Formats: sequence, C-alpha cells, structure tokens
Amino acid sequence: MDKFFNPSSIAVIGASRRRGGSQTIKNLQFGYSGKIYPVNPGYDDIHGIPCFSSLDQIPSAVDLAIILVPAPKAPDVLKSCAAKGIKRVMIESAGFSETGAKGKDIQDKCVAIAGEAGIRIWGPNCMGLVDVKKRYFFTFMSPRIYQDGIQEGRFSMVVQSGMLSAGFLVDLLSKRNIGVNKICSIGNKAGVDECDMLTYLLNDPDTNVVALYLESAARGRELLDIIRRASKPIVVLKGGKSERGAMAAVSHTASLAGDSRLLCDILGFYGITLADDFHQMIDLARSLAVKPRIRPAARLGVVSFSGAAGIVSCDLLERRGLAIARLSPETEYALKRLYPDWMPVTNPVDLYPAMELHWHESPVAQAIAILLKDPNVDVILLHFVAGLGGEELHLAELKRMADQAGKVIVLWLLGKRNPCRDIRVEADKCGMLVFDELSRAVECISAASRYRPYETSPGDMAAEYTNPFHISADLLPPEGGIMDEYHSKRLLKYRDVPVVEEEIVTTVSEAKDAADRFGFPVVLKGLMPGVLHKTELGLVKPGIEGRKGLAEAFGDLTERLGGSGRIIIQPQVRSDFELIAGFIRDAHLGPCVMFGLGGIFSEFQKDVRFAPAPLSHQDALRLISRIRGNSLFEGFRGMSPLRKDVMAGILVSLGALGAGNQAIEQIDINPLAVSAGLPVALDATIVLAS
Amino acid sequence: MDKFFNPSSIAVIGASRRRGGSQTIKNLQFGYSGKIYPVNPGYDDIHGIPCFSSLDQIPSAVDLAIILVPAPKAPDVLKSCAAKGIKRVMIESAGFSETGAKGKDIQDKCVAIAGEAGIRIWGPNCMGLVDVKKRYFFTFMSPRIYQDGIQEGRFSMVVQSGMLSAGFLVDLLSKRNIGVNKICSIGNKAGVDECDMLTYLLNDPDTNVVALYLESAARGRELLDIIRRASKPIVVLKGGKSERGAMAAVSHTASLAGDSRLLCDILGFYGITLADDFHQMIDLARSLAVKPRIRPAARLGVVSFSGAAGIVSCDLLERRGLAIARLSPETEYALKRLYPDWMPVTNPVDLYPAMELHWHESPVAQAIAILLKDPNVDVILLHFVAGLGGEELHLAELKRMADQAGKVIVLWLLGKRNPCRDIRVEADKCGMLVFDELSRAVECISAASRYRPYETSPGDMAAEYTNPFHISADLLPPEGGIMDEYHSKRLLKYRDVPVVEEEIVTTVSEAKDAADRFGFPVVLKGLMPGVLHKTELGLVKPGIEGRKGLAEAFGDLTERLGGSGRIIIQPQVRSDFELIAGFIRDAHLGPCVMFGLGGIFSEFQKDVRFAPAPLSHQDALRLISRIRGNSLFEGFRGMSPLRKDVMAGILVSLGALGAGNQAIEQIDINPLAVSAGLPVALDATIVLAS
Repeated sequence: MDKFFNPSSIAVIGASRRRGGSQTIKNLQFGYSGKIYPVNPGYDDIHGIPCFSSLDQIPSAVDLAIILVPAPKAPDVLKSCAAKGIKRVMIESAGFSETGAKGKDIQDKCVAIAGEAGIRIWGPNCMGLVDVKKRYFFTFMSPRIYQDGIQEGRFSMVVQSGMLSAGFLVDLLSKRNIGVNKICSIGNKAGVDECDMLTYLLNDPDTNVVALYLESAARGRELLDIIRRASKPIVVLKGGKSERGAMAAVSHTASLAGDSRLLCDILGFYGITLADDFHQMIDLARSLAVKPRIRPAARLGVVSFSGAAGIVSCDLLERRGLAIARLSPETEYALKRLYPDWMPVTNPVDLYPAMELHWHESPVAQAIAILLKDPNVDVILLHFVAGLGGEELHLAELKRMADQAGKVIVLWLLGKRNPCRDIRVEADKCGMLVFDELSRAVECISAASRYRPYETSPGDMAAEYTNPFHISADLLPPEGGIMDEYHSKRLLKYRDVPVVEEEIVTTVSEAKDAADRFGFPVVLKGLMPGVLHKTELGLVKPGIEGRKGLAEAFGDLTERLGGSGRIIIQPQVRSDFELIAGFIRDAHLGPCVMFGLGGIFSEFQKDVRFAPAPLSHQDALRLISRIRGNSLFEGFRGMSPLRKDVMAGILVSLGALGAGNQAIEQIDINPLAVSAGLPVALDATIVLAS
Repeated sequence: MDKFFNPSSIAVIGASRRRGGSQTIKNLQFGYSGKIYPVNPGYDDIHGIPCFSSLDQIPSAVDLAIILVPAPKAPDVLKSCAAKGIKRVMIESAGFSETGAKGKDIQDKCVAIAGEAGIRIWGPNCMGLVDVKKRYFFTFMSPRIYQDGIQEGRFSMVVQSGMLSAGFLVDLLSKRNIGVNKICSIGNKAGVDECDMLTYLLNDPDTNVVALYLESAARGRELLDIIRRASKPIVVLKGGKSERGAMAAVSHTASLAGDSRLLCDILGFYGITLADDFHQMIDLARSLAVKPRIRPAARLGVVSFSGAAGIVSCDLLERRGLAIARLSPETEYALKRLYPDWMPVTNPVDLYPAMELHWHESPVAQAIAILLKDPNVDVILLHFVAGLGGEELHLAELKRMADQAGKVIVLWLLGKRNPCRDIRVEADKCGMLVFDELSRAVECISAASRYRPYETSPGDMAAEYTNPFHISADLLPPEGGIMDEYHSKRLLKYRDVPVVEEEIVTTVSEAKDAADRFGFPVVLKGLMPGVLHKTELGLVKPGIEGRKGLAEAFGDLTERLGGSGRIIIQPQVRSDFELIAGFIRDAHLGPCVMFGLGGIFSEFQKDVRFAPAPLSHQDALRLISRIRGNSLFEGFRGMSPLRKDVMAGILVSLGALGAGNQAIEQIDINPLAVSAGLPVALDATIVLAS
C-alpha cells in the first residue's frame, strides 16, 4: 500500500490541458516532489512538464499510474501498465461497475489483467488520494479546493464517492477551517478496499483517527478482525440503512439483523464510534484525534458569559451522561477573587460579571488557569464570543497550559465572521477543539469520553471459546431445513442451554400423566413440520389449569394437526420478564450471536444487540451490557436480578454451536423466560442449511 | 406593549460617551427616527445629540425611558420617570434580583414605584429590544453587531439573558447570515414577561414564528392559554432540565412530572416545537417561518451529486419519518433526458453524471423545474457545492418557481467560504432555507412537516369537560393527607373509573367467602394508614391459589398490620399489559393529567405524557396518542387493542375530579391493568391537601 501513498514517480494517463486532465497535473505540481509523467499522444507538454505519447516512452520506472481515460480504454491502458512494470494503478475515471452490466464487464477485465500482472488497482470511479500534510493531491479535483489555504489535521478519511470527497474537502478547508490528514476516495473498490485502507491508516503515524464512510463491507469478517485489533479510534458513517434483502429472514434473529443493524451493532461492540451524518463524522473524528485524549467519565468545568448558556450546557451534558465538575474549595476561593461580592462561585462559571469588573485583567485566562489546577476538572468547556471587544484568547498558550495539566479545553465559539475564522484556524493548528454549536461540542466530548478500545484478555481466546463445538450427527437431521421446537431444544440442551421440561405425548392419558408430574398449569403445543408460527395457527394452548381443559386442548390440537406432527406438553412457566437470544450466519460478517429483550418489548421496541461468534464469556457479558434497557437485569420490584453468568453461558453456547457447525444457519430462542434470575428457553427454532 | 416597540421618543438615562452609555446612543442613531434624549448631568451633548441633566429638563413628552444607571439609583430614576409621566421603562442595568437579597430589594422597590405610577417595566438586567427590520437597537450592545451587515428575518426571539442575545445576534447576522425580525431580551421579567411578549409577537404581522428561551414560567397557566390559542408556530428552548424540588413527589405521577418534563411535555401537547440547543432553536424557527409552509407528511425529492450523499439523505429522512417521493412517470421521462443512457432514474436524483454530460445546460435548474411539476413531490432537498465551478444557482428564480408550485426547496450547502456566504445571504433574503448540515436540514424539514396548530372543536369546550365536578363530602376525609387504596378507588369508582372488584375482610372466613365468589386466584392486601409502598412492606399477597394459601396470607397480613389498618381481597387480574394514569396540581401549570406505560416499562424506561386538566375527550385521545410506545395499544400477538374510548373516559374523569376539587393534590392509578382491551384500576392512591 505504501507506494500508493508515497510513490517516487507518477504517470498520468489521460493528462491534458483541459478540465480533469489538466487539474490532475496542476494538483501534482502543487506539492508532489517526485517525478510526474503526463501521458497523452496529443501534447508535447502540459503545464510545462514534458508529455509522453505512451507509457513505454517514459525513460525510467514508474511507481504509480493515475488513469483518467474513459472506461472502455482502461483495459488496454492496464495492459500497457503491466508491460511497463507498474504495480500501482489508480483508476479515477467513471463508467465501470457503477453504470451497470457493460461497465461491470470492463471492470472485470481490468481486474483480470491486474491480477495476472500483479498490479494493485485503486478505484475505479474515485477521486484518488489527498495527503494534506505532504500536499499530495493525486486527484482530478479542482485546485480551487486548496486556494483558500490548507490545514493539516490529525485524522484521515476513507470515502467511496468522488464528488463528496471534493465537496467535503473544500468545505472543511475553506468554510470550516478544519484540517484533515488524508482523504482516500476508493470508488468501486475493485482492488483496494476499506480493509486495506484501514490497515494502512491504523499504522500511519500521521493519523490519530480514521473516519470511514461505508455502504457495504464485502470482506466483512476481515473488517471486523482489523477493527477488533485497532488501537486507534475509528468513526464510521454507515450509508444505506434501509431494506436489505440479502438474507431470508426466517427467524426473528435474522429479521432483527436487517436494516444494517447487524453491521452497525457489531461495529459498536468493538468500540467503533458511529456517525449518522457527514459533518458529525468529521467532528467526532477530530474530537477523538486530540491529544491528550479526553479521559473516560470526564468531569466538566463550564466557563460561560451567559447564565442561559451555562444552564443549557448543563442540560446537554447531563443528557449525554457527562458530569459537571464539583469545584474544589481552592478553585472556589481563587475564582471568588474575580467575582463581584454578591456573586456565588458555581460551575458553570459565569464570567460576565467578572468581565465587567476585570475586563482589563484577562479574567478568562485567569479562570482557565484556576480550573486547570482543579483536580476535579478534566475538561473545560469554554464559551466565547469573538469580535465584540473584550478579552482576546491566546489559544496556543491556553493549549500549552492544558497539555501541561493533561486536560482538554473545548471552545464553543460564537461571534463575527472573520474573528471566528481566525480563532478556528488557530485552534485547529494548535490542536484545540472548537465548535460552532454547543450540542455538537457536548456530543463530541461525550463520544471521546466514552471511547475505549476493545480489549481482550488472554482468557478470551481460550480453546473452549475458539475451538469449534461439534455435535453428533443424530441431533442434526441430514435433510436440513427448519427443525421443530422439540428437536431444536434437544440440540440446545445438549450444549447446556437450559430448556423448559417437556415430553412428547401421543394420548390424552400420557398427557395427563405428564401434567401430574409437572403440576398444573401446563402448556400443550402442536408441532407441525416446517411451521414456525405456532401461535398464529392455534397450535399453542397455554394456561391449562386442569385435566378437563387438558383433554379438550389435546383433542383440538389433534384435529388441527390432522395426522401430521406431534404434541408436546410443558409446565406453564411464570416468568418475571422475557428475553430473546439467537444466532445467524451473515453472508459478509459470518456467524453472529444475538441477545435482547423479548416478549412485549420485542413487539413494539427493538432492543437487541449482536456480537460475532464464537464469543468468549467476557464478550457475552459485554453483549448483555449493551442492551439499552439493561437496568431491567439488575432486579426491580423485588424481583431477582438476572444471573448474568448463566445468561453469558447460554450466549457462549449459541456462538459455539453456530460457529462450529456450518449446517446451522439460524437459531432462535424466543422466549427465553427469566424467573428468579434464571433464564430458560421456552421455545426455540433452529434453521439448517438445506 | 406597542409603545415599547414603537415609541415616538426615547430618553436614555445614564447615556455617556463611554462603553454601554455611548453604545446605546450610537445604536439609536443607527436606525431610530424618533426623538432621542440622552440624560446625564455630566455632558452637554453625546455624539452630537443634546444631553439633558435630568428628565424634567426634557421639553416634550417621552414614550420610553431606557435606564442604564447602576441598580441602587434605579428607584430614584423611576420616581423621576413617574414625575415626567413616562409609562414605559426598559431597565437594562444589572444588579437586581439576580444578585441576591439586596438586589431583590431594589427590584421590589422599583416594581412598587412602577405599580403606583402605572409604569410598565421591561427588565431589569436585560439587553432590551432589537428590531432588525426597523433597525431599532434599543440596547447597549456593541454596534459591532451590525457592522458586517444586517439581514431581516421572519421569526422573532424572546430571551432572558443579555450576553447571549448579543453574542447570538452577531453570530446569526455576521457568521451565519440568518435574518431575524426582533430579539427581545427581557431579563428578570419584573414587569414584562414571556406571556406579554408572546401575546405581542403572535399578533405582530412581521413575525411568522416566535422562538422562546424559557427557564421558568411563573405565569405557567396563562402561558399555556396563550400557546393553546396561538395560530403561529412557536419554538421553545427550555433551559434547566435538572432537579426541580418545588413539588413533594409523593406519588408516581408527581415524581414523573419532575425534570421539567411536565412543562416541556404540555408545550408539546399544544403543538409547540421543542429545541435542545440555541442554533437548533433558530434553525427550527426559520424553517417554520418559511412560506409556503412545508406541508404535513411531506414527500421529498432529493437532488444530489453524490451517491453517498443521496443514500445518507434517505437514511436521515427515513429515520425522521419523512417519505422519499415516488417520482411520476412524467418526471422519470423528463429526467431521463438529462441522464447518460446507462443510468436509471431514481430518487435521490443523482445529477453528477448529468453534470458531466450537460454542465452547460443548467441541469440543476432543469431537474428542479421537472421535480416541481411532479404531484408526488412536496419538498426538494437540493445538495450543492459552491465554489468548485459548474452551474450557478439562481436562488430567487428557483424560489419564485417553487412558490408558484406551492412547494419548498431546501438547500444543503457545501463549498468555499465566500461563495457559500453569498448563497446564504441570497437564500435568506428570498426566504429559501439553506443548511450547512444535512441532518439539521432533515430535522427541520421534519419538524416543519409535523407542525400542526393545536385545534379545538366546539365540543371540546362542552360543559361536561369544563364544569367542575363536585364530589360528596363523605368521599373525602376532611383531615386530608394520603387516602388508602380502598378509599381512593371508591372515589374513582364514583367518577366512573373502572376499578377491580374488592371487599374488606375482617376474618379468614370472610376472605374465603369472597374468594369463592371471585374465584381463585385472589390477591390479599394489607392497607395501613399513610403507607404508600405496600409491596415493599410485604403487604401484598398476589396469586393465592387456594383456601390454604389464603388462610396463611391472611394470618401473615394480620401480624404485619399489628392491629392497625385493614385487609382487602381482590380477584387476581391477568392483564395483557399495564398502564399508569394520574393527576397532579402543579404550582405554575395548575391541574394536569398524566398517562403512560406502566408495569415493567415504568421501571426502566419512562414513557408518560401530561395534559392540562380538565381535558376533553378529544384531548384525552390526543394524550393517549402521544405515548412513544403507542403501537402497543393497537393489539399485538393476537391480543385485543386498547379500548381508547374507555381509556380516554378515564383520563377525562381524572381531569374532572382533580380540576374540580381543590382538595385533591395528586392521583395515582398504578397499575391500570388492561385485559381484553379494557383498562381497570388495580391499585390507586389519592393525595389530599392537608
């Protein structure tokens, strides 16, 4: 990959004096110090650089070729690249697989040629690479992008599309004054994809954080492996959250995994920060990129000039679960000196009266110096209005002081256009966070404060979790398909998942004997081959209180079954609440375990989470803790808390069962009833590959 | 009020040649065409205007006095205002009640003097009034605020604090290029408050929307009455969402009303749009202020230049419940002409390939013209990158076309700093919405599309709802305090609230007789005077299945009660789900009814809503529909849907009971069990004023 980022020579095939072909050469001239070889038989030189009629005319070796010619010509150009011994090719032209079958053919041809010649393709249909620090613009974007100045940042960005990367970059550099390190636009991902990019950028010393726009992840499991081991924060904006038809949603588990929830959820499981919008992604990325990093459970000191802004800050901080720092007595004493007599010292620190009293003594700088000394304050959220007179901020000095104290100052900036711009440029240069909106500032502080890299202990990789769990063949019907409740639960039980007591009964008298053993009330169920939704077909008879009801229910079920299927009897279990657990094998992400709230909750509010399988006990506990309504598990109204160790054991079993047996496609335990803290499977379905 | 906004002469007491005193005169000179009388014994003139040594020296009548002198001098100044016959006074100085007891005394003195003299006070501790359209700056803010130019908007803003209004105004005008109509900073609200402001601005022809920052509402019920009748949208940012200790939270209902949820919730009930942050408030207000208004359930056409931006737009729109328009065949046909052959026409409309093909033919304008004709498209969300070349936008023309079609174009703008600014200024001038962030654009479209003024039908005001409902004295214990479950439910039953069957039993044999009548299982409860949380004290014995258990439970309860209290028996009710309903009398907002999800839901996720009492049947239905999890009420898993008419009847009853009887402070029905769609009160507590 490094030759894409640091080539010592670049050939531009399709260079010209017009539009993209011209812009690419201008962009290379802007900051690239290696050799540039424009290739186009129509010109002798382009912007003063000698132009070659073909690649083979170039006298020396070429590290990277940028291809701008129309798609139909790309295969031939690739062949000439192969002949020239070029190993890295960026195809920036469009007209490939994104345009339909014809374009896909061309792209496939290119991939085949490249494969044979050992060429790596970046693109096609992309804007290439921008490295702001090195001033490398390997792209046909308009040079207007850097006309208003350039700022170097500490995060890098991976995007698919082109226009967005150009439009976005100019927005960041010119309008928002936000520096970025690298932008990699990888288009159709015919060769290089997000896995390659992440691997490179996670090792790039200039990149503190990677921001990734992602629609699909063909190599999903590899992506997860890279992400799991990442020691830098990653921010992902997942595009395309609507319908996904890829998987037949036979089970609840599979249908709950839809809507791209599965991928997003597992990204979250590994500590990825998720964004919903482009600028939010950038703001999150730059917030995670500041050093020193905002520490977990950060406590905030707020410095404001308006009571209302202070109050709203607290509201927003509290909503995001951030703590307002309780100021130390030393801080209160020191701040008191800045305040008028009548004013009590509080956090938020309202400096307006102090400004009125001491505006010539830099009360803001003084207050910040005081707060930086307070051991109870981790982050200072400073409100500032630029351009209305009053104290000037010396950001570099403030940043130096904050660094020394190992703390972070975050600026919410209002004010006049030009003074604000100057402050933003300076802030970005010295690595201080500045935001235009208070809520975004708070959101980013919160995200940075919540960030923890995913950590595994050596025990997590123990053989009991990672070794596939094999099951005897007689438990898996060879014909595949949907296993009925009885067989499904038998298999689960075999892997130590607690299931409700039950018996197959063939006569009323057998049913009565079983009921006597279980004790009333009991449940009678009719199992029919291939039927998943028993309740809807009247095949579930719950709450049978006595022998008479039992006989009636048995009769009715026998009739409904019409000779096929069989009848099982279970004791009626009274549960405190219901959970749902499951397993699916995703085409991209591989085997995954699901856990969530069941029963009434699953009907009108989805609260389920996923994790890759197999999973360790530790991972299972992490999965359980990720449920929004997890306070339910702590016990309420005198009910026992959920036995999380037992629950984790069930999830580990599901993961081992599914991951270890390719035949298993989906598992549903629904409901998984909890009484006295102990979960037990009341119903289950296993779907096998047919 | 109008004399505050349109005085024909203004005296400035405390005018000077320095700082605030100087700035106020400069601000008045900027755009105010009435007479200006600086008052200060130390000057002959200020900025060329003759200065008076005292008010009585002014030869003619004065409509409005702006007071800038230190707080301790304010009472004397007010006396001189009274002597001069001035009826409107804006006290902009600080140092009043916001500073503690001493300042409060001064403020009280001022209010007393004003009261006697018939003077209305605006402030103190405020920044007064800015009317951008008229260029009135009745404030000591820095004139730098309007140095970068001024833009007139269609919404007005009411804030308390000063610095924020100045900082905010300059941010809007200079940095964001957002026009505003009026900003009213009303400070300590010693005279004029948000009720007065709203009343004025709702009648102001220049104001389409009012944005209101609100911490507390001393005249809460009046505020609600104004809001209920408002025919213009109002956006409220409620500051201070933390603890509110005002009400002793005896009941569930009262504790659920805390955290300023009550006020916010009732504002929402009346169709108010709620904001969480300052810029969001502005963005919402200007979005609601555009004409023609975005219609309910708007269907969107998205015009983009990037597949990713189109996809993310759809994700955001779907999440906000907005519909992506299905383009008409005519539209598809017309757009096809702009596209390359290989490209299918979809919504989002990706114009990038069209730009490449037809960039000299204004494809954006063409596409918009086509979409405006489509009867399936209500709003066009246009993405645009400014400053990278390509088509220029003629916003005024686009706006004219959109108006003609009765549709709205919303612009998401990326790009270079100066071109973006130009576009924003032009957009704001011609009343077109432009946003820097996609998610904010979508949020505002959604809010505008959801806005509906609160509407009452004549039937809503029928006597059955508005007449107080009196209850016979024997149902209310004269000593007040907490009524036990039995008495509470007796009173509810009297007002036609369905309650569970129950009997008081004094012996085991009475209990057995009752159980035989009800049928097992039954519940036995011990009622002790003043005890609210029976379960925690072991005073509830649910699920008693037989005579033996009943005798044991009776014995145990008798022991626990230790001679006081009494025992009641009820049939055990099997419910599909549980609700909670209640009543509170709020110090500011008056009588209110509460409704929400109960049982397990209320333990770990609050889903409750409030409405002012008494309430009509229509209001009760509206209250029910406001529950987030209201899909639960439609029936699920074959259970019956909630009988909303019955439920509404119960809420009407609660409102009438509470609103009609001052003695009733709080009512809790918890749980209100629903089986077969019918709610029935299983437990209830009424708290009376003692």
